[in-house]
Amino acid sequence: MDEGCFFEDLRLGQKASFGKTVTEADVVLFAAVTGDTNPMHLNEEYARESFFGERIAHGMLAAGLITKVMGTQLPGPGTIYLSQSLRFRKPVKIGDTVTATVEITALNEEKARVTLRTVCSVKGEPVLEGEALVAVPSRAAIADRRATKEAAE
Amino acid sequence: MDEGCFFEDLRLGQKASFGKTVTEADVVLFAAVTGDTNPMHLNEEYARESFFGERIAHGMLAAGLITKVMGTQLPGPGTIYLSQSLRFRKPVKIGDTVTATVEITALNEEKARVTLRTVCSVKGEPVLEGEALVAVPSRAAIADRRATKEAAE
Repeated sequence: MDEGCFFEDLRLGQKASFGKTVTEADVVLFAAVTGDTNPMHLNEEYARESFFGERIAHGMLAAGLITKVMGTQLPGPGTIYLSQSLRFRKPVKIGDTVTATVEITALNEEKARVTLRTVCSVKGEPVLEGEALVAVPSRAAIADRRATKEAAE
Repeated sequence: MDEGCFFEDLRLGQKASFGKTVTEADVVLFAAVTGDTNPMHLNEEYARESFFGERIAHGMLAAGLITKVMGTQLPGPGTIYLSQSLRFRKPVKIGDTVTATVEITALNEEKARVTLRTVCSVKGEPVLEGEALVAVPSRAAIADRRATKEAAE
């Protein structure tokens, strides 16, 4: 079964990454799923006259890569998302390869909560920076619940 | 041509909304686009044993609805996304109808920047709350640039 890390397995400075080339198909599908048909994403003629000079990907598409890393790699399945901040530094253009990296920057043992620095980069330059707060299952809490349940039986 | 609001058109308290039923197809496509194959989203047997008891949608899918409102309605096309905070209050389940609402809470005239309160709700209950900061084209800045260009010619 897919299982992520338990809180006890996590260490400050632990990192994980995922890279993906953002294709035209991704942008079209993202527009279909969210309804975000902003011409900046879908209309090449409009985009050419716009601030960025060409079509750009939806900002939340890059943010989705951060969630991919947290939800499947570090801490992995079982992680519960509490909050995320996002600072959009540069646009992601169609064809850019985006690498999302998360790094553990704080561990709150009492609440089994984890703070991660989250960065998406294109050719080594940050395009999206922020911070995530997540809750992670802990072995201690699971053992506590089991003991309470057994005592009640 | 699709055109959004100019900064001068915006007022404190202006609001816009978009509602969408989050379907299984949306979740499958979102996983394909982002690579986020967390079993919480895709594996019904896993999800049934998990904290939420059933499959939930990707958190960033709801966040994408906020961007849809800002990029196509208020302020609309031409808006440049600077930052977004997201607090995940409750999971979005497959079949839930999510309404994303944005409301202008601050206008920075000097920089033509707009702060918006952003909320996604299901049956009137907030599932995702946060704040966005965006830059919006201003008629004043466009007129200034035109005057400078003409004076140089």
